[in-house]
Amino acid sequence: MIRASSALYAVIGDPVGHSLSPVLHNYMINEFGLNAVYVAFRVPKSSLRRCLDSFKILGLSGINVTVPHKETVCQYVDDSSDEVKTLGAANTLKIQNDHISAHVTDPYGFLESLGTDKERFIDAPVLILGAGGAARSVLFALSKLNPGKVFLYNRTLEKAQILAQEAKKIYDLDIQTIEQTALSSAISQSSVIVNTTSVGMSPDYNKSPLQDFSAFSQQHYVYDLIYNPGKTRLLFKAEHRGSKIKNGLDMLIFQGLQSLRIWMDENLSLSEKQLKELRGLLRSELGG
Amino acid sequence: MIRASSALYAVIGDPVGHSLSPVLHNYMINEFGLNAVYVAFRVPKSSLRRCLDSFKILGLSGINVTVPHKETVCQYVDDSSDEVKTLGAANTLKIQNDHISAHVTDPYGFLESLGTDKERFIDAPVLILGAGGAARSVLFALSKLNPGKVFLYNRTLEKAQILAQEAKKIYDLDIQTIEQTALSSAISQSSVIVNTTSVGMSPDYNKSPLQDFSAFSQQHYVYDLIYNPGKTRLLFKAEHRGSKIKNGLDMLIFQGLQSLRIWMDENLSLSEKQLKELRGLLRSELGG
Repeated sequence: MIRASSALYAVIGDPVGHSLSPVLHNYMINEFGLNAVYVAFRVPKSSLRRCLDSFKILGLSGINVTVPHKETVCQYVDDSSDEVKTLGAANTLKIQNDHISAHVTDPYGFLESLGTDKERFIDAPVLILGAGGAARSVLFALSKLNPGKVFLYNRTLEKAQILAQEAKKIYDLDIQTIEQTALSSAISQSSVIVNTTSVGMSPDYNKSPLQDFSAFSQQHYVYDLIYNPGKTRLLFKAEHRGSKIKNGLDMLIFQGLQSLRIWMDENLSLSEKQLKELRGLLRSELGG
Repeated sequence: MIRASSALYAVIGDPVGHSLSPVLHNYMINEFGLNAVYVAFRVPKSSLRRCLDSFKILGLSGINVTVPHKETVCQYVDDSSDEVKTLGAANTLKIQNDHISAHVTDPYGFLESLGTDKERFIDAPVLILGAGGAARSVLFALSKLNPGKVFLYNRTLEKAQILAQEAKKIYDLDIQTIEQTALSSAISQSSVIVNTTSVGMSPDYNKSPLQDFSAFSQQHYVYDLIYNPGKTRLLFKAEHRGSKIKNGLDMLIFQGLQSLRIWMDENLSLSEKQLKELRGLLRSELGG
């Protein structure tokens, strides 16, 4: 029940109208019996700073930050976690006594979403598609998983090279950028493939970050960070070739859960039953 | 279900932690199937203006205003209804495209709460206890009910005289202020008594705006705007003498419903079943 005493949390972004975060968080708030409520605010770039001031004035307790504010928001907070400093992006703000601290939960969401599939990463060659913020989060997560060689592919090679340089400095990862012509070979050499690009996301169901699926096999574990559609063209094709596939819905859930842990300062967790119910709820919000 | 697309409404006040408005409004929002959510913000006097700016920036759709901002808020809005201009107070703000209009729903809440008891007011002598903002709203409502003579009693006589002067100018009401020594006589001469003071409100269960109940009889209809406790000492004593009694819970409900109608621009109404359920919900929030 929402009461006058309920703490207020929100997601900000632009656009934000299709964000699943309110449904996700209010489900968890209810299940955990927290006295809180979670809403969404559309915040254009030009008013980000004023909005953060508003949140302090109105006494909001926490904010999730999504596109296009994840990087910019770091300029306006009072302090940042080491992970935020490393990644240069934040998705979780905790507000206490007019003080805003920035956190990032995407890498933890990725790690927790793996469950027992974490083992698939140990000493495994991994191919990462994309070199944006999501790739950064996945590289951060990989650094905790002791993978083998990491291949990094991006349509614009230079962007991949810059990210690889950065990541080599920070993490103990053996990263190699690859060109399009080397993609098939990299797929064959990898046992894990992670798509961090938005190619194939609704409504572009027919697009895929890869065009040639002939190198996919039963040996592959293919993770697409996209959760809408639940099965992208990439996952569909990979599954058809016998690969094990996973979409981004669990990462969405677990990055949200990690935000809630930071806000509540409590080690909350979802039971298998709750996780299943929550997946169903989110899928039905996505329209199937 | 709260979604990213849900419109946000809130009550502001200081203190606001015990406001029933979130429970009241979220019940109605659910019952009416509206895509909205209602929260509370504690807003100190010093930040009222900045908060209103924040609501525009964040795109809130409507605000209920409670103590101590009902009068002050009128300075900061873009336009006011005739009722707000008359009463000098607002409890409902509608926000559209950065434009804030002020409304007041308390008189309508009082009127609608009467139901068929409206008839008791026609040509009836009425005694009003108190001369503050709530008395103003009740006088406004009375002006729609064609009552008989209106007695106005306030501990500080001068305040009653000022309000009576004002009300005579605006409404076609026959108002007479009375002193404490004339109270018993006024009670005897009245058939309706309305308490608009906060005397007897939780936690002051043993207090009452009247001390001598000997003039109360079965002829009286006694309305106490207080809803916590559900039966004030005044109502308890009046009922004991055979009077018909009514507390402020229905007025709370109907002023809220009227706010929702203004925000939604829809003629919403509660069924008897919903009204009963809502009363039960609010009573249980009040702890009995």
